[in-house]
Amino acid sequence: MTVEQICKAAKEQSFELAVLETEKKNAILRAIARSIRAAKDDILQANAYDLAHADGLSESMKDRLALNDKRIEAMAQGVDDVAALPDPIGQVTAEWTRPNGLKISKVRVPLGVIGVIYEARPNVTADVAALCLKSGNAVVLRGGKEAIESNKRIYRAIAEAIEGEGFSAAAVGFIDDVSREGSAQLLKQDGYVDVVIPRGGDGLKKFVLANVTMPVIASAGGNCHLYVDKTADTDMAVNVVCNAKLSRPSTCNALEQLLVDRDIAAAFLPKVCGALLEKGCRLTGCAEAKEIVPEIALAEDEDYRKEHLDKELTIFVVGGEEEAIARINANGTCHSDGIITRDEAAADYFARKVDSGCVYINASTRFTDGFEFGFGAEIGISTQKLHARGPLGPEQLTSEKYVVRGEGQIRI
Amino acid sequence: MTVEQICKAAKEQSFELAVLETEKKNAILRAIARSIRAAKDDILQANAYDLAHADGLSESMKDRLALNDKRIEAMAQGVDDVAALPDPIGQVTAEWTRPNGLKISKVRVPLGVIGVIYEARPNVTADVAALCLKSGNAVVLRGGKEAIESNKRIYRAIAEAIEGEGFSAAAVGFIDDVSREGSAQLLKQDGYVDVVIPRGGDGLKKFVLANVTMPVIASAGGNCHLYVDKTADTDMAVNVVCNAKLSRPSTCNALEQLLVDRDIAAAFLPKVCGALLEKGCRLTGCAEAKEIVPEIALAEDEDYRKEHLDKELTIFVVGGEEEAIARINANGTCHSDGIITRDEAAADYFARKVDSGCVYINASTRFTDGFEFGFGAEIGISTQKLHARGPLGPEQLTSEKYVVRGEGQIRI
Repeated sequence: MTVEQICKAAKEQSFELAVLETEKKNAILRAIARSIRAAKDDILQANAYDLAHADGLSESMKDRLALNDKRIEAMAQGVDDVAALPDPIGQVTAEWTRPNGLKISKVRVPLGVIGVIYEARPNVTADVAALCLKSGNAVVLRGGKEAIESNKRIYRAIAEAIEGEGFSAAAVGFIDDVSREGSAQLLKQDGYVDVVIPRGGDGLKKFVLANVTMPVIASAGGNCHLYVDKTADTDMAVNVVCNAKLSRPSTCNALEQLLVDRDIAAAFLPKVCGALLEKGCRLTGCAEAKEIVPEIALAEDEDYRKEHLDKELTIFVVGGEEEAIARINANGTCHSDGIITRDEAAADYFARKVDSGCVYINASTRFTDGFEFGFGAEIGISTQKLHARGPLGPEQLTSEKYVVRGEGQIRI
Repeated sequence: MTVEQICKAAKEQSFELAVLETEKKNAILRAIARSIRAAKDDILQANAYDLAHADGLSESMKDRLALNDKRIEAMAQGVDDVAALPDPIGQVTAEWTRPNGLKISKVRVPLGVIGVIYEARPNVTADVAALCLKSGNAVVLRGGKEAIESNKRIYRAIAEAIEGEGFSAAAVGFIDDVSREGSAQLLKQDGYVDVVIPRGGDGLKKFVLANVTMPVIASAGGNCHLYVDKTADTDMAVNVVCNAKLSRPSTCNALEQLLVDRDIAAAFLPKVCGALLEKGCRLTGCAEAKEIVPEIALAEDEDYRKEHLDKELTIFVVGGEEEAIARINANGTCHSDGIITRDEAAADYFARKVDSGCVYINASTRFTDGFEFGFGAEIGISTQKLHARGPLGPEQLTSEKYVVRGEGQIRI
C-alpha cells in the first residue's frame, strides 16, 4: 500500500473507532498485549537482525534499540496498563442552555488520525498504538530505520490482535518505507491525518516542521531552570538541585540552569557546588558565581540557552525573583522550571509569571512525565502553547466538539 | 520598528499581561472604547481616504470596508462588551494530589503573543485587540492594505488608550507594511509569536500555512450538511433548511448540502424544494432527486464538496443514516453539520459519529458563532482538531499550564 492508501484506510477506521465502546477498545488492547507476549521469540529474532546491522550506532543508541525478555514483557504490560486507564472519550466537559432553548454540550472526542514519526526504541511502536487506540484515534506509525525489523514484527503482532478482535487492522497503519520519503509522504496527507507528533531529536523536529501540512504537537526540548530564592531551605535546595540535574541527565526534564539569589549566593553556592562536584558534575557560570566557587568555569553566552543533556550545570547569580523570572522566560523552552522558596507570595508570583508548561514549587523538575503526573502513560511532552502543554497522556490525544440540540430553532 | 522588534516588544509585554489583574485589563478595554469614540471623526476621515483609493474592490468589499457613525459606535460597544465578559485567566481547571504528596493544578493562562493576519473590515482591528487583551495575550496585528489608513487610525486610538492607563502600547503591535513581506516577516517570528490566526479567504490561509513557523489556528471554510432523517418533522425540516441556506448564504455556517433519506424523499423533496425555489435558491442534486423535482439541475461531483457561499444548494438522496454520516465525514469540512429527526437513538448516533466541530440536532447550522454560543465575542471559527474547534471566544485564546507544589520531593 502507498502511504496515501495507508492514511486513507486509517481515516476510514477512525470514524468507527470514535464510536467504539470502551470495553471493546480495552479488549483489543489486552489482545495486543497477549499477541506481543506470544510473538516474543520472533520479535527477539527480528531485533537481533536489527542489532547485527546497527554498525553506525553509538553504544547508547544500541542499548535503546536492544530488546530482551524483560523489555518485551514491559512493553506488553504497558499495553495492559493503558487498557486499565479510564476512557476519556464521551466525557461532557461543559453544558449550557441558551436563551433560545438550544442545549449546547462540549463533548470529548478523538482527534481522528494521528501520525507519529519516531526513532530508535522499538517499544514506541506498541506504546503509541495503545495510547492512540485507547483515546479512540487511528494512528499511522513511521519508525526509524535502525529498528525496522523489530518494528515490523511488533506491528504484525498488533495487527493480528486487532483483526482477531474483529476490527480492521487499518486502524493502526504502518509505513515501512524508512527513507526520508516515507516521512515526507506522511506529512503531505492533510486530507487524512489530523495531527502529527514527532518523537525524536532536533533534526527530526525541524524536518517535520519544514514539511508538514497539518497541525503538529512538538517539543522544543527542555532548558530547565531552578531558582533558589533567598528564603529557601538550603538543604532542600541542594537535594532538589542534585536530583533534578543528576538523576538522569540525558532527559528533557533534567535541570540545566541554576539561578541563585545574590543574598544567599555566598552561603549557598559552596554547599550546592560541593555536592554537585562530588557527584562528578561539571559547572559553568557567571563571574559572580565563579568568584564564590573557583571550580566553576566561566560560562559562554550560549551556555545559558543550552540543553546540556549531560552532567553539566550552568549557574547564574540574580538580583531577585523578577530577574530570575525574566531570565527563565527569555532563555527557557517553556518546559519545566521551578523555584525553591519558603515565601508563599514569591511562590505564587513565580507560578503565575513563569511561562512554562510545568512550573515547580519546591520540587524537582524531573517529575514532568506522564506517569509521574498520574496520566498512566505518555506519548511525549509538549512545549508549545497550542492544544496541550506538558506531558501528553490519553486525554491530550483528544479534542472537544460541540453538540447542539434544539427543537427546530432558526437564526433570526 | 521592524516586524521582529514589534514582535519582541509584544513578547516582553505578554509576561506582564499574564499577571495583570482582571480589573486593570477591563479598565484598559473601557479606555480603548472611549478612545475610539473620541477619535470618530479622524477614523471616518481615514476611512474616506481608504474608500477613495479602493478602485479595484467589488461593491460588497467596499461595503465591508466602509465605516460610519453607527459602525464606529458598534466597534466601541464591542470593546465595552468584551470588558464585561468573565476573565478566563487563572481558572483552576483540574487539581489532584499524587501519592508522593505533590499537588498538581492545571491553571488557565494566556497563549502569549497571538499574530492575527486579516483582511478588509477595519473593525477587526478593535475586535481582535480587545479579545486578546481580555484573555491576557499580547497581539500583533497585520491588517489588509485596503483598510490601512482606517486601521492605522484605529490602532492609534487603541495605543493611546493603553498608554493612558499606564501600560505599554507594545502589548498591541501593529505592522503597517501591507505588502506580502509584512505578513511573511510576521510568520517567521516563532521566537516571539506563539500562535498565528489567519482571518480571511482561502488565498490568505494557504499563504499562511506555506510560510508559518509557529502553530496556527485555521478554518477550512464550511461545507455544511443537514441530513433529513425519515422520522423528521418535515415542517421543521423545511423551516430549518431554508434558514440554514438563505438567512445569510455568504457565511461559513450556511448550509451547502442537503441529504434526504430515500424513504421520505418523494414526499419531502417537493415541499422543501418548492420553498427554496420560491425564495430564489438554485438547486443542484443527484439523479434520484432530479427525478422527483425536475427543477433540480444534475450536480457535478465537485458540487458535493463545494462551499457555494451563494443561494445555491446541492441535494443528495441517501439510503439511511449510515450513508449520510459517511458522506458528511468524507465531503464535509468539520465545521457545522446537522440532522433533523424525531428518533433519539439516531440523533445520538449522529452526534457521536459525525466528525464536525459543531453537530446540530433539529437546529440551523447558522448558530455556529461566538455570540450565538454565548461566548460574547469571537475571533474566528476553527475547523481543525488541535486546540479548539468551532467558535473561538476568549477562553479559546488561552492554554493551561501545570503548577506543581511540593515540600522538596525528588524523583527516585
